Amino acid sequence: MGEILKINIIGSGNVATHLIREFLKHPEISLQQIYARKLENLKEFEGSAVLINDINLLVPADITILSISDDALEDFSRKLKNYQSLVVHTSGSKDLHTLHTPHKGVFYPFQSFSKEKKNIYFENIPLLIEATNNKDLVSLRKLAKILSNKVFEMNSQQRLALHTAGVFAANFVNYMYLQAEKILHQNNIPYELIKPLILEVAQKATKISPREAQTGPAIRKDMKVIEKHLDILQGDTKNLYKSITEQILKDFKK
Amino acid sequence: MGEILKINIIGSGNVATHLIREFLKHPEISLQQIYARKLENLKEFEGSAVLINDINLLVPADITILSISDDALEDFSRKLKNYQSLVVHTSGSKDLHTLHTPHKGVFYPFQSFSKEKKNIYFENIPLLIEATNNKDLVSLRKLAKILSNKVFEMNSQQRLALHTAGVFAANFVNYMYLQAEKILHQNNIPYELIKPLILEVAQKATKISPREAQTGPAIRKDMKVIEKHLDILQGDTKNLYKSITEQILKDFKK
Repeated sequence: MGEILKINIIGSGNVATHLIREFLKHPEISLQQIYARKLENLKEFEGSAVLINDINLLVPADITILSISDDALEDFSRKLKNYQSLVVHTSGSKDLHTLHTPHKGVFYPFQSFSKEKKNIYFENIPLLIEATNNKDLVSLRKLAKILSNKVFEMNSQQRLALHTAGVFAANFVNYMYLQAEKILHQNNIPYELIKPLILEVAQKATKISPREAQTGPAIRKDMKVIEKHLDILQGDTKNLYKSITEQILKDFKK
Repeated sequence: MGEILKINIIGSGNVATHLIREFLKHPEISLQQIYARKLENLKEFEGSAVLINDINLLVPADITILSISDDALEDFSRKLKNYQSLVVHTSGSKDLHTLHTPHKGVFYPFQSFSKEKKNIYFENIPLLIEATNNKDLVSLRKLAKILSNKVFEMNSQQRLALHTAGVFAANFVNYMYLQAEKILHQNNIPYELIKPLILEVAQKATKISPREAQTGPAIRKDMKVIEKHLDILQGDTKNLYKSITEQILKDFKK
């Protein structure tokens, strides 16, 4: 059904690696070239595509994915200022126009990727795409739909907002887990014990709105329990408890 | 195998309701009486046990579970000062000695319960038990092991620490989800989009330590991205972003 999409990937980081692994699963995608500064970072993909470390060897493609660190995007894209294929970056916080290539777009998978995790299922990962014209958008949508059921067009401003929301829902959430781990450790309680709670709370947030799901001493204005908690906390963890509690009290006061 | 455990339950709140539903599944448990001030709150359990609203009618049991609001525990327990069976509360933050009954203990299921959720699987929920003597502890452990694979003895001080850790891992985490929801809403992005991230981050925290799992602009000291995020945030959400970011920066500085 339809033609095969010819793809190149530039990069060997987390996102690049997971994209490459995923692309290799789909017969509708032909992964032509993978570029990395150090070829040894691409060992896993020997025999799966042409591996290059000289950007001048880059061949034309339907889409070339530039998946490198945010800070390197702009400079690197200048090396491709005469490259006539569509080049897209994979960053949540970078504007489309960060790229100095003739044809540009964005292909942002909204998920937390880590190297430890071998298998990522892209099927349910939201893919946010952006391009400067309809033809490029059609190409990007075609690629995205091979991978995921959740493909959305989104401009750079909205994508930045989504990225910011992600900091709360991922990075800050993890930092709360970290505080919990600290408290447990200080009290000789195995971290294991809190895992069922972590999973239940996350699952609840996928079923009802967090505003409805909010519980705890702060929303109940249970100052006695809050005092007890503060009594056993110390240092930064205590300050964090205080400031978040104050904000919940303020947020939920009628 | 062994005798049947005779149980009474006092209360008709979230925890009481889920415990009653669970007890009714186990033939090794005989649920004798359920007390509520208003019998209409026990409609679901008509025919499953003797329903009472006069505490003087309470019969002896192996264990009587007093699952009412924290603030009511002490006063209510005084009504049972001549009751000779073991009475346990289900609170994370209340000391064992909150109870003024001759025989006392604690039976604390460490999970977030909500009325919306009909089916709770106790099998994996940590149950923390405490008693004043070995005989009572044996009874409590017997009951707990019928329900769960994760039964731990824990004193009141440790239980309070666990409860405090739970505020971070559940209430504060949910409050982070709420901020994410707010940001998405303000930018006309469906909340739906963030659900896969929420689940992935929670699952990761059950596999690796949150300290290893921490990612994001703050731990990378990526001030450019932090500035961009602050630019699109407002009010309390912005203040919260600032204070948590500052703390991560401080926490992870070498």
